[in-house]
Amino acid sequence: MTLLFCSGIDNAGLWRDALRRRLPDVTLRVWPEVGDPDDIDMALVWQPPPGIFAGLPNLRLVMSLGAGVETLLADPSLPDVPLVRMVADSLSDDMAGFVALQVLRWHRHSDEFDAAQAAGVWRWLPYRPAREVTIGLLGLGELGQAAAAVLGALGYRVLGWSRSPKHLNGVECFAGPDGLEAMLPRCDQLVCLLPLTADTRGILDRRLFARLPAGAVLINAGRGDHLVEADLLDALDCGRLGGASLDVFSEEPLPAGHPFWRHPRIRVSPHSAAATHPAQAVEQVAATLAAFRDGRPLANRVDRGRGY
Amino acid sequence: MTLLFCSGIDNAGLWRDALRRRLPDVTLRVWPEVGDPDDIDMALVWQPPPGIFAGLPNLRLVMSLGAGVETLLADPSLPDVPLVRMVADSLSDDMAGFVALQVLRWHRHSDEFDAAQAAGVWRWLPYRPAREVTIGLLGLGELGQAAAAVLGALGYRVLGWSRSPKHLNGVECFAGPDGLEAMLPRCDQLVCLLPLTADTRGILDRRLFARLPAGAVLINAGRGDHLVEADLLDALDCGRLGGASLDVFSEEPLPAGHPFWRHPRIRVSPHSAAATHPAQAVEQVAATLAAFRDGRPLANRVDRGRGY
Repeated sequence: MTLLFCSGIDNAGLWRDALRRRLPDVTLRVWPEVGDPDDIDMALVWQPPPGIFAGLPNLRLVMSLGAGVETLLADPSLPDVPLVRMVADSLSDDMAGFVALQVLRWHRHSDEFDAAQAAGVWRWLPYRPAREVTIGLLGLGELGQAAAAVLGALGYRVLGWSRSPKHLNGVECFAGPDGLEAMLPRCDQLVCLLPLTADTRGILDRRLFARLPAGAVLINAGRGDHLVEADLLDALDCGRLGGASLDVFSEEPLPAGHPFWRHPRIRVSPHSAAATHPAQAVEQVAATLAAFRDGRPLANRVDRGRGY
Repeated sequence: MTLLFCSGIDNAGLWRDALRRRLPDVTLRVWPEVGDPDDIDMALVWQPPPGIFAGLPNLRLVMSLGAGVETLLADPSLPDVPLVRMVADSLSDDMAGFVALQVLRWHRHSDEFDAAQAAGVWRWLPYRPAREVTIGLLGLGELGQAAAAVLGALGYRVLGWSRSPKHLNGVECFAGPDGLEAMLPRCDQLVCLLPLTADTRGILDRRLFARLPAGAVLINAGRGDHLVEADLLDALDCGRLGGASLDVFSEEPLPAGHPFWRHPRIRVSPHSAAATHPAQAVEQVAATLAAFRDGRPLANRVDRGRGY
């Protein structure tokens, strides 16, 4: 077996070491040093150059280094072979940690206390007990469920919305368009962890913001294209929303001069909510390869019709 | 029954409303309007003026609005009657939320990302998966256990130290002086949630910092006098410690001009890690009064020998 590794943002050296150690019988090629393209039967990729698969005639399996595969699916050169996405446990921990951090920052006046410290002023501010604060989650897949568990442990009331009905311990679940309408007015903070599909593109728009309580906080850790950026700026400027934590953007890196950088109610982070840590993820790659070799079903295989 | 309410920092109006609604048969007096001091048989206090109890000859029960009672115990006018401290569920949620917020801020480069945003720069930084990060807790009472549960849900490895041995799910427990020595070298972050007693005063000192890994983070949400302030500044300045989040101080409010205000590796918050929320805490007051009237054991009664 020969595996092609291709990622513009991950550290290829760390990956090479981790893969060689865990999978010594797999021949590893690191893009752009492909060698003989006919050798390559598997690929492990994150945001590879469009068209990359056209030159790899013998691919039998493609693995995505991240959970979001919309860019891959949009590449017409992607062959009709099994596509598996990374949903490592550490990815869920990372995401749950990011969501908890942002929720707590807004709820517990973290930025106001930082500003008071910068001014050298002791200024106590009241806050509500967590059990009186309601967090709504858009998306109840692996990542949404992990976030729900942590938010529940922190004492928050947790609501969750998904396309099809779900039943989860400690989460009041909503589904479908009517469910979304019913959930939104109750959310002090709304967290987007949806996959990006034709149905969810632009879901965070003026219409949705109008259903939230005045002063609600938006946290987007899904994809940049879930958000209609101009609508967010309007909603913040008129006070409909109280703040936003954004980790993902329509264009990444977020362009210099973009209004999000300097907006006083927007917290920007550089797509850091979850990371694929080589030592952990390589275990999932190994499990996928073993299942593939044995002809067993592949965990986290993408349903191309559904888009994730 | 006549209850005297006395607190310099809580909102007396909120408390009066909550107590009147929940305990309509209790006569309420709000300091300094005591009325006839002989009427007062119960007191609900937070940092009352020293000597306050000398003028209240018929006190039979004292309740503290907070979990820390060292100031009360140091007041020679405190009569030899049952002393109960507030350990409301919301207090545990508050504290667990504060600890999670601070741990995540340091682990997930929150301040660095804020600085990058302020500079308008997209700068990704790697971080370890939570399961490879070890958090040590000093103190495994109600608050320590609540913090341990949330940190565990976030995926962190959790170690905990207490005076006497404990066994807790998901926490590797240490006890006594030898246990402390063994635990400290493994802690990427150390969280102090101890009660303040003769044994724990000044425990966060040069000697303890020397046992931590280089670059470790200190989070103090116990009491200001747990910390030797000069030792912390030395440890930060020489790189032994990587940062500190401090919510409590030897002198509160933290005096203007104190070096903590402007230290780049110290995060100051105004004793906000946990708050006593009237609507919640009044339920605990009601339960305490009912048990006291019926002669049943009082939950959260302070052991004066132990100091908490």
